[in-house]
Amino acid sequence: MTTKSKTRSWWGWGNVEDAVAGPERAALVGRVAALLPGQDLTDHEPPDPAALDLPPARVRPPTSLAGLCSDDPADRAAHARGKAFRDVVRNLHGDLRHVPDLVVRPASEQDVVDVLDWCGRAGVAVVPYGGGSSVVGGVEPRVTGFAGAVTLDLGRLDRVVEVDATSRAARVRAGVLGPHLEEQLRPSGLTLRHFPQSFEFSTLGGWLATRASGHYATLTTHIDDLVESLRVVSPAGTGESRRLPGSGAGPSPDRLFLGSEGTLGVITEAWMRLRPRPRHRAGASVRFADYPAAVAATGAIAQSGLHPANCRLLDAAEAFLNTGVGVTGGVLVLAFESADHPVDAALARAVELCRDHGGEVADETAGRDGRASGIADEWRSSFLRMPYQRDALARIGMVVETFETACTWDRFEALHAAVTEAAQDAIRRVCGAGVITCRFTHVYPDGPAPYFGVYAAGRWGSTVAQWDEIKAAVSEAIAAHGGTITHHHAVGRDHRPWYDRQRPDPFAAALTAVKATLDPAGILNPGVLLPERPPPAP
Amino acid sequence: MTTKSKTRSWWGWGNVEDAVAGPERAALVGRVAALLPGQDLTDHEPPDPAALDLPPARVRPPTSLAGLCSDDPADRAAHARGKAFRDVVRNLHGDLRHVPDLVVRPASEQDVVDVLDWCGRAGVAVVPYGGGSSVVGGVEPRVTGFAGAVTLDLGRLDRVVEVDATSRAARVRAGVLGPHLEEQLRPSGLTLRHFPQSFEFSTLGGWLATRASGHYATLTTHIDDLVESLRVVSPAGTGESRRLPGSGAGPSPDRLFLGSEGTLGVITEAWMRLRPRPRHRAGASVRFADYPAAVAATGAIAQSGLHPANCRLLDAAEAFLNTGVGVTGGVLVLAFESADHPVDAALARAVELCRDHGGEVADETAGRDGRASGIADEWRSSFLRMPYQRDALARIGMVVETFETACTWDRFEALHAAVTEAAQDAIRRVCGAGVITCRFTHVYPDGPAPYFGVYAAGRWGSTVAQWDEIKAAVSEAIAAHGGTITHHHAVGRDHRPWYDRQRPDPFAAALTAVKATLDPAGILNPGVLLPERPPPAP
Repeated sequence: MTTKSKTRSWWGWGNVEDAVAGPERAALVGRVAALLPGQDLTDHEPPDPAALDLPPARVRPPTSLAGLCSDDPADRAAHARGKAFRDVVRNLHGDLRHVPDLVVRPASEQDVVDVLDWCGRAGVAVVPYGGGSSVVGGVEPRVTGFAGAVTLDLGRLDRVVEVDATSRAARVRAGVLGPHLEEQLRPSGLTLRHFPQSFEFSTLGGWLATRASGHYATLTTHIDDLVESLRVVSPAGTGESRRLPGSGAGPSPDRLFLGSEGTLGVITEAWMRLRPRPRHRAGASVRFADYPAAVAATGAIAQSGLHPANCRLLDAAEAFLNTGVGVTGGVLVLAFESADHPVDAALARAVELCRDHGGEVADETAGRDGRASGIADEWRSSFLRMPYQRDALARIGMVVETFETACTWDRFEALHAAVTEAAQDAIRRVCGAGVITCRFTHVYPDGPAPYFGVYAAGRWGSTVAQWDEIKAAVSEAIAAHGGTITHHHAVGRDHRPWYDRQRPDPFAAALTAVKATLDPAGILNPGVLLPERPPPAP
Repeated sequence: MTTKSKTRSWWGWGNVEDAVAGPERAALVGRVAALLPGQDLTDHEPPDPAALDLPPARVRPPTSLAGLCSDDPADRAAHARGKAFRDVVRNLHGDLRHVPDLVVRPASEQDVVDVLDWCGRAGVAVVPYGGGSSVVGGVEPRVTGFAGAVTLDLGRLDRVVEVDATSRAARVRAGVLGPHLEEQLRPSGLTLRHFPQSFEFSTLGGWLATRASGHYATLTTHIDDLVESLRVVSPAGTGESRRLPGSGAGPSPDRLFLGSEGTLGVITEAWMRLRPRPRHRAGASVRFADYPAAVAATGAIAQSGLHPANCRLLDAAEAFLNTGVGVTGGVLVLAFESADHPVDAALARAVELCRDHGGEVADETAGRDGRASGIADEWRSSFLRMPYQRDALARIGMVVETFETACTWDRFEALHAAVTEAAQDAIRRVCGAGVITCRFTHVYPDGPAPYFGVYAAGRWGSTVAQWDEIKAAVSEAIAAHGGTITHHHAVGRDHRPWYDRQRPDPFAAALTAVKATLDPAGILNPGVLLPERPPPAP
């Protein structure tokens, strides 16, 4: 879990030491070569960030803040963007058009206040930065009307300040990375159990600002529900909500900042709800010969009130690619967990619902200390390697990316068909060959959150444009069929065209008014959620 | 469930025909007389609303809207305020200082738009009105800087427009009363199962605008979680959020309007999440000799992940007054329900947690079609009669009212002690004799929602002032001990002083900005949540 002594990749996912290499790389490239005979699979090394000849920093901090600031080219390059496919490929090409002038690392909340003060006065844009794992352009300083742009890296604000074991909650600074958070909670026997795929490389503040989804397929799917109170520094002042298990006093103050993606303020601290580690587990993988039947079974479980921790329906392509299982319909990976009571009966009932829809149990583990099943284990290992494999494939000119949504059950069949068709059509047009896969990451009584993967043959030098065309096509299909442009990847700069259409007009007006009030100079993450507004003339 | 052919009380709770009378009244008054020898228990009849000599309406609607408007004195009097103790007593005194000039009943959403347009132009305040069951001054047109005030009664917008049985959701107009909503859903086999104490006399729109709490003690405690999308008419325009089971696209647009109490827009319609009626039930009542042990047991259940539908801890006074059970610590009323699977094991585990804390099962019902237990039944009947009994007691000069909050478990003991002491002290000072009771209406892993009742000897003519003094004392104690000023009664006009202190400053600034944008003339429910802002000079 700990990332000590490893080196973060400046251009790609995670740690340099964990990149796909050796036999893993050979096997991966071999599989692609077999599927795409004749495809150019030349490996493209990332450039040396120090040799990129970045433009010099346009702004200088006041002396009082200089100690927090870095203008080191490698540091600036590493903070220039997130970790989407289009980010990684542009990095590989050495194409760093928008680089922060400075990386600023506050050591206290007062430092955050001071940095916002300075930037407000100097007309400098501020990009709040957690782990930098955005896949929607959320941390890329793609701004124009400012004297410069700084990235506010909150990594030093990384402590668990206080644990309330009675209420099972902790006060945590926002810059803490997932593993370090869990490490600090361990002595209390409590855990947040929020495990997005980016867990190792994303922070509490990032999860909160982007409404991240984590471990749980049902109930507490988004981080929103784990928040007891928030502390936020905005250019107009600092505020903290009262620690409350529930309240009905006006619109929720926290919900305005959850999902605000650094545009309204900087989340510096939160009281988070915790739980004990699970002691009871039960899991199963269920095969279906028919995809609609698998979807119906998953819907029945989502509506049963059984509340599985995991309820991940893999379609046939996803199951084959990431677990090696051959199946015509799909595989449902189910898991239940509890710190208090056995969950075997819940699993048995969920399996019964699957059988009612033609499912056949492939493997099952149950009882106390039961671990994930074989297929689930396979899938989990694959899940954690996916971003690294994506990078390896990007280097050989493949187009590999994901996108996700959520919709109501009544619309899923049409949405799935339209998205698949749009993706396949775009892949044919711009790539020639490729596949699209689908899994459910989360399920609700009223609908699933489908997550799609695209693997297509690219042309080195054009893969960003190829992906952008596929992405636009599937985003249109999602919008046309009532899905959200994002269930848990956030809006950033890249989802804006579809977000703008999805967001009700009165709420857009409200958000604009809030932005103008809390960030009057418009310096906070300009272009995210709302159009960039140049700062007022000095 | 149906209220057909009954007459709503203009001055007090519910239906005239259901008021406390005859032997029920004799028994109630007899009990009070026994407890308070020498107390003046003269019964005070409500005045005839037609004889109240209301001031004439100050505004006239445009001809196009005249058909929707009523200036009938009884109608205006009946819409002048909510159903708090202080409302009922002032009605009994014929003290109707703030009466709407007109009651306007839109028959369509376009009517709502037209009324807001007219009122915006004419500088007339608009009070959105559902069932009128506010206990916080939320529907009382206590406004000054306006040409007049109209009450916008949404009662005609009462249809379930569409049911999506696949996703288990329905599109419902906001003005529907609880029983009529359930009546319309019945053919689908689905139910909202949102049963606040006011169920018969409150509407979907009111529940949404005030973040009402309902039937479920855990998980979906507030109506917020049952909302799929909202349709809102604001003076600045109409908007509708996309129907989504979950989303991470920016801050939740719906959460800004949930709890906005009619100050930002009029909720005209919502897609609501439904479920099938429960087929499996299990319940028990558990006695505790020791209150702290009962609280600890309740906390353990709240943190167990068992998710009881009911988990209502009654303290000794509450148990005695409302179920007749004598106990030194308290009684925990537990119930589980499911439409899918048996819940006996969940009940057994919850009971085991109670026994670990010294609880003894008083009665238990389990298995399919198990109904609530004896004490629970007793309590439920009493619960539904409470507001009617409150009215009967108000008529004989008693001070009878409730208040509620939520806090984290670590703070509950101190909050409970401080609130109890503040109430007892204030009762002694202003009333002489009285009791305070406490129950938990909802419980969360990180804290309970305690609900307090006050029964005190009043002096006819002074009981509102007496209550106001008690209320101020307990509100200060709640604030000092980190509770919310309201868990589910909303803010209205009466909770403003404490809400203003509880609300983080940046959120106050944000809310003010949103109000100015969506309601530029400041006509919507002025004085609720935010200070009344007079309309701009014409």
